[in-house]
Amino acid sequence: MTQPGTMPAMTKEMQDCVDACMTCHSVCEETMSSVMQLGGQAQMQVMRALMDCAETTRVCADMMMRRSPLSPEMCAMCAKACEMCAEACLSVPDDPQMTRCAEACRRCAATCRAMAGATM
Amino acid sequence: MTQPGTMPAMTKEMQDCVDACMTCHSVCEETMSSVMQLGGQAQMQVMRALMDCAETTRVCADMMMRRSPLSPEMCAMCAKACEMCAEACLSVPDDPQMTRCAEACRRCAATCRAMAGATM
Amino acid sequence: MTQPGTMPAMTKEMQDCVDACMTCHSVCEETMSSVMQLGGQAQMQVMRALMDCAETTRVCADMMMRRSPLSPEMCAMCAKACEMCAEACLSVPDDPQMTRCAEACRRCAATCRAMAGATM
Amino acid sequence: MTQPGTMPAMTKEMQDCVDACMTCHSVCEETMSSVMQLGGQAQMQVMRALMDCAETTRVCADMMMRRSPLSPEMCAMCAKACEMCAEACLSVPDDPQMTRCAEACRRCAATCRAMAGATM
Repeated sequence: MTQPGTMPAMTKEMQDCVDACMTCHSVCEETMSSVMQLGGQAQMQVMRALMDCAETTRVCADMMMRRSPLSPEMCAMCAKACEMCAEACLSVPDDPQMTRCAEACRRCAATCRAMAGATM
Repeated sequence: MTQPGTMPAMTKEMQDCVDACMTCHSVCEETMSSVMQLGGQAQMQVMRALMDCAETTRVCADMMMRRSPLSPEMCAMCAKACEMCAEACLSVPDDPQMTRCAEACRRCAATCRAMAGATM
Repeated sequence: MTQPGTMPAMTKEMQDCVDACMTCHSVCEETMSSVMQLGGQAQMQVMRALMDCAETTRVCADMMMRRSPLSPEMCAMCAKACEMCAEACLSVPDDPQMTRCAEACRRCAATCRAMAGATM
Repeated sequence: MTQPGTMPAMTKEMQDCVDACMTCHSVCEETMSSVMQLGGQAQMQVMRALMDCAETTRVCADMMMRRSPLSPEMCAMCAKACEMCAEACLSVPDDPQMTRCAEACRRCAATCRAMAGATM
């Protein structure tokens, strides 16, 4: 457990990961509105992926900001949720919001994988 | 601000309200799965109401459990989210899960209104 | 209830409010770490205010991003949580992180009050 | 990705795990109030563990209720957060609320480990 007075500083890599998580979370929440407007059975599967990704990125960013010792595991899981969400978004053809969301997810997944591998 | 040593005990009314919020939250999360299976444009509107209600009931229960001074306001808002969700659920005809969800929402709304009016 | 095809666009004012909420949320989560390092009975009261504010700003931003019809009420409540948190932070003397947090809370409260008064 | 019409039913094991997560979440939120009353530097470390555990159990229960494909990973992570929280709670001597919280955490950890190992 982290001792008082020895809390690790927020490194640039961790800050980038927090930022990528927060951005991905925001884009997912906004994309839910687009998906709700599209409607349709297939979109409901996208909705599930967006909900998982929005929740996971938020918790991941919060844990890093609190310097939780669980951050590396959460980053690994978050990377997986982001990849699944990117894939789901790209299953909707020709939708700029979905493309934008997939890009934010991919970027977030990359930073999370890097953080999961690093010693935090 | 609540002073140390004077934290109000959890009254029976507050405990009932916490329980109703937690139950309503659970039913809303489960109902999302049903809605995702139904699919369709109209269901997306139900989805939005479920998401608002699931989030609001959770935060409301958590605030009461932490004895937050914001609990009364949150209860008032939660009652509103529950009523909107109940109405949205009842717009889906002949679906037992939707009926069950509307009932949980109505019960939660009633306990939240009572708590919002009480001095906490 | 918002109809398909008529989802209101994100206005500049709403985007500013979302940004202020997200920033305030982040600063609150980071400030929790500082408070945990300070320790002490009084800081526990600050902790409670930070938890309420971190949760309320997050839910508020998410609701605006999803264009929830509950956004105006949530903004009103969020403004209150932010003001309480700013006050709690300023009760800790001579701490730059606390000052920074109080400033983010005040800024967020101002944008939330504006959104609560506007027709969304 | 789960196909429409093939959503796996909630098994008794999964329902037990959801219940254990929800109970653990509630007890953690309540225990935060106790910790805030105790105050003190050491308790701040307990607070961090409670926050991680409260958040992880909630997300874990929600994912199972939504039949998220990420549930097994989340259960594995949740088991870890619960174990860390139980240990932190037991570091506070002679406190019945802490003992109660540690027990809820241990029970939750056991059901989560079982779910993480099962094919969901």
